[in-house]
Amino acid sequence: MKKYTIGLDFGSLSCRGILVDTSDGRICAEAVMAYPHGVMTEKLTGGTLLEGDVAFQHPRDFREAMVAVVRELVGGCENAENIVGIAADTTVSTVIALAADFLPLCELEEFASRPQAFAKMWKHHGAAPMAKRVEQICIEQDRPYLDWYGGSISPESLFLKAIEAFERDREVYDRTACFIELADYVTSLLAGKPIFSRPLMKSKAFYDPKTGYPDADFLRAIDPDLVGLPNKLTYAFKDRIVAIPGEAAGKLCPEMAKKLGLPDGIAVSAGTADSYSPLLGIGIKSPGQMIMTVGTSTGIMIMSDEPRRVEGVTASLPEIYGIKNKHCYASGQTSTGDALGWFAENCIPSRYEREAEAKELSVQALLTEKAALLPAGSGGVMALDWLGGNKSCLANPNLTGLFIGLTLSTKPEQMYRALIEATAFGARAIIENYEKSGVPVREIRAAGGIVGKNKLLMQIYADVIGLPIKAGRCPQIPALGAAINAAVAAGVYPDIERAVDAMSVKDFDIYTPNRENHEAYNGFYAEYMALHDYFGKGGNRIMERLKGKI
Amino acid sequence: MKKYTIGLDFGSLSCRGILVDTSDGRICAEAVMAYPHGVMTEKLTGGTLLEGDVAFQHPRDFREAMVAVVRELVGGCENAENIVGIAADTTVSTVIALAADFLPLCELEEFASRPQAFAKMWKHHGAAPMAKRVEQICIEQDRPYLDWYGGSISPESLFLKAIEAFERDREVYDRTACFIELADYVTSLLAGKPIFSRPLMKSKAFYDPKTGYPDADFLRAIDPDLVGLPNKLTYAFKDRIVAIPGEAAGKLCPEMAKKLGLPDGIAVSAGTADSYSPLLGIGIKSPGQMIMTVGTSTGIMIMSDEPRRVEGVTASLPEIYGIKNKHCYASGQTSTGDALGWFAENCIPSRYEREAEAKELSVQALLTEKAALLPAGSGGVMALDWLGGNKSCLANPNLTGLFIGLTLSTKPEQMYRALIEATAFGARAIIENYEKSGVPVREIRAAGGIVGKNKLLMQIYADVIGLPIKAGRCPQIPALGAAINAAVAAGVYPDIERAVDAMSVKDFDIYTPNRENHEAYNGFYAEYMALHDYFGKGGNRIMERLKGKI
Repeated sequence: MKKYTIGLDFGSLSCRGILVDTSDGRICAEAVMAYPHGVMTEKLTGGTLLEGDVAFQHPRDFREAMVAVVRELVGGCENAENIVGIAADTTVSTVIALAADFLPLCELEEFASRPQAFAKMWKHHGAAPMAKRVEQICIEQDRPYLDWYGGSISPESLFLKAIEAFERDREVYDRTACFIELADYVTSLLAGKPIFSRPLMKSKAFYDPKTGYPDADFLRAIDPDLVGLPNKLTYAFKDRIVAIPGEAAGKLCPEMAKKLGLPDGIAVSAGTADSYSPLLGIGIKSPGQMIMTVGTSTGIMIMSDEPRRVEGVTASLPEIYGIKNKHCYASGQTSTGDALGWFAENCIPSRYEREAEAKELSVQALLTEKAALLPAGSGGVMALDWLGGNKSCLANPNLTGLFIGLTLSTKPEQMYRALIEATAFGARAIIENYEKSGVPVREIRAAGGIVGKNKLLMQIYADVIGLPIKAGRCPQIPALGAAINAAVAAGVYPDIERAVDAMSVKDFDIYTPNRENHEAYNGFYAEYMALHDYFGKGGNRIMERLKGKI
Repeated sequence: MKKYTIGLDFGSLSCRGILVDTSDGRICAEAVMAYPHGVMTEKLTGGTLLEGDVAFQHPRDFREAMVAVVRELVGGCENAENIVGIAADTTVSTVIALAADFLPLCELEEFASRPQAFAKMWKHHGAAPMAKRVEQICIEQDRPYLDWYGGSISPESLFLKAIEAFERDREVYDRTACFIELADYVTSLLAGKPIFSRPLMKSKAFYDPKTGYPDADFLRAIDPDLVGLPNKLTYAFKDRIVAIPGEAAGKLCPEMAKKLGLPDGIAVSAGTADSYSPLLGIGIKSPGQMIMTVGTSTGIMIMSDEPRRVEGVTASLPEIYGIKNKHCYASGQTSTGDALGWFAENCIPSRYEREAEAKELSVQALLTEKAALLPAGSGGVMALDWLGGNKSCLANPNLTGLFIGLTLSTKPEQMYRALIEATAFGARAIIENYEKSGVPVREIRAAGGIVGKNKLLMQIYADVIGLPIKAGRCPQIPALGAAINAAVAAGVYPDIERAVDAMSVKDFDIYTPNRENHEAYNGFYAEYMALHDYFGKGGNRIMERLKGKI
């Protein structure tokens, strides 16, 4: 009998789901639903105006999308009874404040206009000032967290987002029973009980498997009233389960099984991060293998055989695949597709839009077509790709984007290509940082929404980095990773490694560096790094001053 | 009997003309004609493709525009016999290579596809490499030219544009009888004989009234074959006249009188620069008075009572108004309206164009409307306004434009306002440079195409600079300056000062600095200057490297 699992991938703008044949990883059905409320950066549903570098989402969107996507997958499946497991990956830290009954606070009438009661998306940077203070306390108290997190504290983490609620809206904080990761939220909904993913607790919530959450001394230094914070992380739920992805953390609860049209009691795996999930989907198993997941943002992960301190990583994950001596580092770039999307949305004249229409292309496809005709270096225009801040290796959300080399004859496609090149330089900077820290990069695989769509971007990455890039020929690699977790949780495979062998993607497009371009890019990369260091490492902190952050 | 004069203003894109009542400066008629070939930066008429930082024009355009404009002015005038003089101001150095019979070389069939045979517009930077070499020779031979030109040699000057022809197309150089300024070209056509404007000879052609053009030692150091260059400046014409603007250098020749419909033999004044002409039109007479002429580029001139060396000026003009103790300095910014025009043309999404259409506004008027709602500092976006290079005080055509502070929520109007602010900071940098060099700025008047159109820009200038700006309520101030020269040449007034008193513009819009904004801008100006010095003074020469110039 064929066995199937469902993988759900909760991205920044939509939930994608796939139904997978566990014997070979073949995708039998796909479904997608965009979040009705999208990303709220200027005002909330209901009209509350927002300020600052914020990005909220509506938690109901995640539930609605999950139900719609799974029902569509099941609806097209002849043997729904052969579906044996389900698992999700999501953006992290996307954090939801839950009341004691597991209902998101923003869905209570009294909190419906309170920003802190909504889901705070991974790229929400409201906790930036708190992150600086926590960093300082880590140094003063000689805490290990800076070692864990690559030398700085990210305002994007769950722990900081919880502190932000404490500081910005004490009533929301007080009423919150649990600040939960989106991955854990949807997993818990499926199982009908609280399930927490252990890797996320360590990577985003300052949790140490041996000693637990930060102690009272540390919390008191932030604020005396914060001593109870750990109770609002996972402790609040007596029947909570802490598991690693691939463990059968729970069973699909009857209520949800009915809603989704799935068999009651099938395996529910602990959730995982959408930056981690592609690691499985693309088949990474050996030290030195790196995956770049290029979408609205870029997630970079590399496998290693021993943990070491690497400056500027966003997470350092032990026990990867549940195996003690497999260690994984995560880095990221805040704005890849996002930056290109911003450009296409805001900086393209109508004659380009008309040309795109006439050619039946998207504006970005037209820009890519034009950009492909330009030489390496975009004919003299360069950019810094920090429109959403820099995640790695500078870990500074208050850095900003930059264009240089503009002349009266600069064309939009030059600026567009310069943005692509800047993201490639940013990726190279991360790779060189790993190499410098003793984590060699032997192979690069790529996944993510942009990979299949923009061959120029992939070729530029190969040319800039100087290594071949194996791009998975599958747009659903993150969801495939989730489906692999589900297959292990369902006991189809005895461990994740064997599930990865059988189910991960097998078809790749290989982008080989063009030597001539690579040499040209070495020069431009040096220029990029000079700007990177000048604006990112204190030579001129104008970016933070312009944002009013220092 | 009323007496009238005609002032012609040859700008970058069109020729504007006015008919003026000499008794009070009242403008009785206006006419304008755009140059049919516009500015050629990518290919010449006929299809020759162009490369590099070039800007060519077709000399025939100037003749056609002059005839059409004057005929229109005269056509609407009831008493054409009362028109007593004519004068022109033009962009400088816009340089035309003339054959011995005064015909532009590009109008000879054999040179019709040779770029160097066309008019080279003021902003044509093809001579940039030669300028560096000439600068070096000035230092080695201890020549005074660096003192004259503010410490560096501009590739925009006639002298350098002639050397460029020598180096890039020897046949064009050899066939050229005279490299002539556009101002002298049109004046000579009017008079039917060669007339050269002495201030232009000194300011753009290395001419010293006492010692003449550079000597053979200097020219030989550039190239032994260049020794004959002075013969190709004004010496080639035996009957040439050298005059200062306002002198009756010639009389309108019968052939041209017929073409234009003007009385034969009326006074023709020597020509002048379009950056100088507004000085007269706006009524500047005292030391410390500055005029900013804000159009596609910005010309800044300040009157002083004694000559001194000011670093970074583009010209230092003695004998202003023909008076020995009145001295004038000129500075400039390469791209003001040009930069805003580039932005509106290339960086504005269609939804803005649609909104502008719906509101019956130009795109720039809509952007200005939106930008006016932003605070000083454009909500965190800054720019460097060097899209056409920096003329003053860095005198480096290879510097480029820059945007910094971009985020995923940056809007086009923020970038637009940042560009306006950058040009204002650039103007302030010039003003502070004068102050530092002992040339105090006591009063600022403004003229030029943008002044009447964009009140926001004017207010930002006042706020940034911290001085009130008196903006002449007349869009034809440069042409009015030319008409004043014509009136003096015709003997209506005994000297320029008295003509200026009577005829210069009397109505002003006064922009008073907002103290709060001024204080905010002091901070942003410091940021601008930090970028200015870092990218402009050798901290990081990336701009020149990206242009392939070093």
